[in-house]
Amino acid sequence: MLTQETKALEFNRKDERVVELLELVQQIEDLKALGDLAEWDQNTLLPDGAGETRGNQLATIQGVLHDRRTNPRLGQLLDELQETVQSTDYTDADRGLVRLTRRMFEQATKLPRALVEEMARVSSGSFEAWRRARERNDFASFAPWLGRTVELQREVADHFGYLETRYDALLDLYEPAMTVSKLDKLFAPVREVSASMLRRIQNSSNTVDASCLEGDFDTEKQVALSRQLLIGMGYDFNRGAIAVSPHPFTSGAGSPYDVRVTVHPDRHHIQASVMAAIHEGGHAVYEQGSAETLARTPVVGGVSMGVHESQSRLWENAIGRSEAFWSGQYAAVREAFPQHFAAVDAATFARALNRVQPSLIRIEADEVTYNLHIIVRYELERELINGNIAIESLPRLWNAKYREYLGIEPERDSEGVLQDIHWTSGFGYFPSYTLGNLYGAQIYATLRQQFPDFDQQLASGDTSFILNWLRDNMYSVGSIYLPDDLMKRVTGASPDPQFFVRYLTNKFEAIYGL
Amino acid sequence: MLTQETKALEFNRKDERVVELLELVQQIEDLKALGDLAEWDQNTLLPDGAGETRGNQLATIQGVLHDRRTNPRLGQLLDELQETVQSTDYTDADRGLVRLTRRMFEQATKLPRALVEEMARVSSGSFEAWRRARERNDFASFAPWLGRTVELQREVADHFGYLETRYDALLDLYEPAMTVSKLDKLFAPVREVSASMLRRIQNSSNTVDASCLEGDFDTEKQVALSRQLLIGMGYDFNRGAIAVSPHPFTSGAGSPYDVRVTVHPDRHHIQASVMAAIHEGGHAVYEQGSAETLARTPVVGGVSMGVHESQSRLWENAIGRSEAFWSGQYAAVREAFPQHFAAVDAATFARALNRVQPSLIRIEADEVTYNLHIIVRYELERELINGNIAIESLPRLWNAKYREYLGIEPERDSEGVLQDIHWTSGFGYFPSYTLGNLYGAQIYATLRQQFPDFDQQLASGDTSFILNWLRDNMYSVGSIYLPDDLMKRVTGASPDPQFFVRYLTNKFEAIYGL
Repeated sequence: MLTQETKALEFNRKDERVVELLELVQQIEDLKALGDLAEWDQNTLLPDGAGETRGNQLATIQGVLHDRRTNPRLGQLLDELQETVQSTDYTDADRGLVRLTRRMFEQATKLPRALVEEMARVSSGSFEAWRRARERNDFASFAPWLGRTVELQREVADHFGYLETRYDALLDLYEPAMTVSKLDKLFAPVREVSASMLRRIQNSSNTVDASCLEGDFDTEKQVALSRQLLIGMGYDFNRGAIAVSPHPFTSGAGSPYDVRVTVHPDRHHIQASVMAAIHEGGHAVYEQGSAETLARTPVVGGVSMGVHESQSRLWENAIGRSEAFWSGQYAAVREAFPQHFAAVDAATFARALNRVQPSLIRIEADEVTYNLHIIVRYELERELINGNIAIESLPRLWNAKYREYLGIEPERDSEGVLQDIHWTSGFGYFPSYTLGNLYGAQIYATLRQQFPDFDQQLASGDTSFILNWLRDNMYSVGSIYLPDDLMKRVTGASPDPQFFVRYLTNKFEAIYGL
Repeated sequence: MLTQETKALEFNRKDERVVELLELVQQIEDLKALGDLAEWDQNTLLPDGAGETRGNQLATIQGVLHDRRTNPRLGQLLDELQETVQSTDYTDADRGLVRLTRRMFEQATKLPRALVEEMARVSSGSFEAWRRARERNDFASFAPWLGRTVELQREVADHFGYLETRYDALLDLYEPAMTVSKLDKLFAPVREVSASMLRRIQNSSNTVDASCLEGDFDTEKQVALSRQLLIGMGYDFNRGAIAVSPHPFTSGAGSPYDVRVTVHPDRHHIQASVMAAIHEGGHAVYEQGSAETLARTPVVGGVSMGVHESQSRLWENAIGRSEAFWSGQYAAVREAFPQHFAAVDAATFARALNRVQPSLIRIEADEVTYNLHIIVRYELERELINGNIAIESLPRLWNAKYREYLGIEPERDSEGVLQDIHWTSGFGYFPSYTLGNLYGAQIYATLRQQFPDFDQQLASGDTSFILNWLRDNMYSVGSIYLPDDLMKRVTGASPDPQFFVRYLTNKFEAIYGL
């Protein structure tokens, strides 16, 4: 088994065309990594006065990358290898390499340069218009930009092609092979269980007290605590680093050898940096876990945005909001803020992290309501792209859906339809978040099945059994397999929303004593 | 005057060939900046496990840069513009642009690829051999690598061409238009005044007590102090950043908008981080001072290594080791380490920074002996390249020169001929350090002439009059002019070692009461 697995992660270098393809993509990966590094730097250290300078540098490297990605020699090699790699002389790594290099080549060649340039212009103008519109609570001034973005995204879909609906082509950019018809089936039970669980919690008399998460927490000590928690979950600082940025993110500029995370400590709420560390840590251990044979190729790292999000959510929510996890890791919290947490035990701390409270703002949402925020956005953008609703009706539809799913309604568009940056550049990304929650719950169920004493081990402070299992069974293969195939390999089944339904139900029935 | 100056810093964009040339070099500068950023990151944050990954990324971007720098279209444009830009329709910026782009083009095209690759291989092997040889005090094992490096550097000189001696071709790489015959004339008085001043100090009964610089200094507080001193000298953090690295350096990855410095605090000696901050700050304010019109071109930033070093030395030594400077800036030192410096006044602190003590190690040398270290190296490498001495005789010659110039002699080659990394990759760089001291002293004399109340202003805590004058008269023009021409513009005269002779004599006669 091991030998076969290991072989699956090696490329067939006896074929000179594979070797040539690797040489071409390695250089592309190197240049992409330098662009990623420049973006990491822009978010963590770049002086304020150097924004335009960095913009020029990024534009130039994107130009070089575009030339490399549209290199006709890539197309020739891919055509020659397409059928060849299906034979048994070739490995799953070879097949993944050809699939993902073709994907990259087609994404770079299928869009006319004029469209790409127009998208960059509109995205930049749309961002500024959105920023102002949100400040002034003025959807009407943003609407024309949004309309233009919808038009351009429809053009993109037409260039890439699709079988059923235009929106499928955009979905495929973030979640290969995902479609509206699959997504609707996956999301329906999620919407139902989330809305009903929210109602059950609201109708119950039990509450969760989260006051222990508030106070005055020195931000440097929060970063030090984040570092300890990352070490606790097995993140490898020999292949990583932590910094502070306005929004937390993970940068895999040299996966698996260089995968970095950021946090953004909030002086008065410790939850922000703690959960961001574990969330970004989940993304990062996934990237750090790729087999070294895959480095400098398109098959290193995560397979899709949804699968990537499954790992951040698995670590953040299923593991990182559990009492067992905090039983094992709580010493770090107490050591960082001994006075504040002197009278708070691990169970109280863990419980506080699970308070359910519907809010209008997605990024502040708890596990029960989060997917409802996403489904509102998904349903609206799907209809926008497929031409079934008008831009002008968005605020009204947004508010109606919030009323229906979450029981609350924004009073101002700035805390409603204008809250997210995503629609300034495109559509199709939002579903990844909920897909991540579904995949994560399914993988979590598999993990618990593999380790009957899961909670006991976790509570003892050991997380390595989880990370090792995930590495061996999932992380090491990088993005060789399509999401659906990967899920079958890891969990034995295609994505199935019932795992999430059971996870959510069991977890919050227990927490709220329902 | 101002209009003319300003016009000199604008390119003639009415000529389409100038515009095309600018577009080509802007992209080269962008890519070079990303390489510089990757090196900055490698020295400040890169995880240990990512060394090879970063090496691949740097090799790839160097390949892209080589292709861009050898673009035949560059050669055509340069040929077309060479004479044209001499006319009055063109500016000094145009002429500098053509000169420096040609220099870049020729440096990239004149060396055969096989030679460049062999140099990279030998340099890498030589570095490892040097590291081991220094550890084991075993010059013989390093000698063959040094011999091969000499051979390759002679080949480089032959490809670039020279009028008088091979070594001139290597000098020119760091100090355009510098030659052995000029250098020998510049260095002779420096050698003489340094050796004689050292003897006079050693023969005097006066001493300098530097014990106040030793203690236990928290390294984070040292970095915070470095930041304060940088702000005090006018370094602009809106266009810069500070970090910690194994060896202090300045990175101008986006001059003038992004110029960063590092320090390397030594827990027990505060001098290291304090003087490194001011030294690197000198390099940095020079880069930050380039006119914005020159950004993203080869004429932004410093004109040569010697002129660059003149600014680090001017700020570090002439200004940063003066009592007047510390009268104005000492509050920052006391604020950082109140207990340690409670009983130490600014004059005592400044005096401690000027203790003269001959040592075997260049990087620990004071102002009186520093140039003697350099001149030993210069005289030896000049003769090596010009074929007048054998590799095997180097340790003996090294020791003899130390005995003659500094009055001390290494007992082991590891603290003698094996101490510097420089000779693992090439020759011609060392003279820049002493040139920097000469240029710096000459510019310092001009500054003092411009501001009769120089010391009073400085002692009041004001450094802006210095920085403003240097910006207006020197920094803003970037590398438009050759070093000799720049010195004439700034000081009214070609480089003249007598300024340094007077500076050293006056300064150390006063300090040691001679």
